[in-house]
Amino acid sequence: MSRFEHDTAVTRTGDGRYQATIDDGWAVIDGAAANGGYLMALAARAMRDPLDHPDPVTLTAHYLVPPEPGAAEIDVEVVRRGRRHANVAASIVQDGRERVRLLGVFGDLAQISGPTRIDRPPLTLPPLEDCVDTTTQALERAQAGGVPPPPIFQRFAHRQPADQMGWAEGRPTGRGEIGGYVRWPDGTPMDTLGVLVVADCYPPAVFNTGDSRLGWVPTLELTVQLRARPNPAGYLATRFETTAVSGGYLEEDGEIRDADGTLIALSRQLALIAR
Amino acid sequence: MSRFEHDTAVTRTGDGRYQATIDDGWAVIDGAAANGGYLMALAARAMRDPLDHPDPVTLTAHYLVPPEPGAAEIDVEVVRRGRRHANVAASIVQDGRERVRLLGVFGDLAQISGPTRIDRPPLTLPPLEDCVDTTTQALERAQAGGVPPPPIFQRFAHRQPADQMGWAEGRPTGRGEIGGYVRWPDGTPMDTLGVLVVADCYPPAVFNTGDSRLGWVPTLELTVQLRARPNPAGYLATRFETTAVSGGYLEEDGEIRDADGTLIALSRQLALIAR
Repeated sequence: MSRFEHDTAVTRTGDGRYQATIDDGWAVIDGAAANGGYLMALAARAMRDPLDHPDPVTLTAHYLVPPEPGAAEIDVEVVRRGRRHANVAASIVQDGRERVRLLGVFGDLAQISGPTRIDRPPLTLPPLEDCVDTTTQALERAQAGGVPPPPIFQRFAHRQPADQMGWAEGRPTGRGEIGGYVRWPDGTPMDTLGVLVVADCYPPAVFNTGDSRLGWVPTLELTVQLRARPNPAGYLATRFETTAVSGGYLEEDGEIRDADGTLIALSRQLALIAR
Repeated sequence: MSRFEHDTAVTRTGDGRYQATIDDGWAVIDGAAANGGYLMALAARAMRDPLDHPDPVTLTAHYLVPPEPGAAEIDVEVVRRGRRHANVAASIVQDGRERVRLLGVFGDLAQISGPTRIDRPPLTLPPLEDCVDTTTQALERAQAGGVPPPPIFQRFAHRQPADQMGWAEGRPTGRGEIGGYVRWPDGTPMDTLGVLVVADCYPPAVFNTGDSRLGWVPTLELTVQLRARPNPAGYLATRFETTAVSGGYLEEDGEIRDADGTLIALSRQLALIAR
């Protein structure tokens, strides 16, 4: 069992009720709240358990109260079972307090058929071999006395264009963007639950604007729409962009493709610049 | 009371329970299902009723079963009440069968403050006076024996670039796009609930690709993220785009600005090309 599978494992304890453990290795700040994409994948594993539909097709999470590392309960409600799709709601609960509410459509992305027409340009990433292993780079900097990377950053093997993480050292690109190539470091095949974590696996794209007023950027809502199962081997290619900060609210739009260039997912979150 | 206010009115009948009437004037096909944005606005009026937070900030609807015109019940669950935001879930139910499930964050967009930085280009629409009154045009064509426009099309005053509705007469633009200027025809001030309907008020943008395989395009999920209350006077300016049809699934991304050019909302839906 891979690290990802282990840390998102759920055990059915009753009708529509699951037990899970929120692992502290997926935090965005050491000792702080778990990453929103990780929480989404954890809930999705419970949400699909009662279904014949293995893949999230669209999944929305509303983050209510930051969860703590440790035991959590996931309550799953199958709202509608159809032939092609099932609609499911879920709640992550700790100490009787709801932390995350989710609403999703599940289907079988191995069975899709229908028109295909992609009018989006390919992601403009440099070749993989020209990118930087930013996980190793961040760990080396931490060993040399720098700020350690967020725990979740170490859960992935990253390859990024050299300019994408420069904001952490005072060299932002000047645009609200972040991205690169990403896969599980232990070679675990990437599946559609893993894609949910990838949709939220980077520091906020808005950090690359270089706006010095920015601090914590908590997510209010994250929606991931999946189109295909990824080629399980190779890296996913990603791009996340923030183009509209207004009144402290911002969107972050993501596009995820697999090693074959197939569109795997579009994501969008609404986040708030904490005051 | 305006037509929109009348047709989205809700009456509280118990704790978290509201009565509403789904009006047949908001159908996408005569006699068929009500428009998804109209259903979202109807539910939103009930969802905000128990709150001190008047504006939807992000609202997601999952369309389960097409509702019928007539009486409907809306069940509202306040998931979390915070100072700045409240999280609310709701269901539209008819004949004991759930038709739409919603999940939303509500706030007060008159009270927003925080950084603003818009890196999106302005919408590239011709001036209002160079646009076509496509509502009147469609009604005139229907009187001359053409296909009548969808009922919901007549609920708005539309001004559109001359090429945007050409697909209906065999002249698509060739790109997955639709948009223009829109307001309530009776001069009712536009508010954030009205914006929810505008986010789904046009025929599918994908019709402008000219793909002859396209038929009905039912929405699985619609999310609208609102940033500001619109200038209540004048037209909203809109643009909707579909850039990725894959395996029969497609997204439609919308941007809505007000008469001042202020970004009012970003929307995204996931829809399915019916087989």
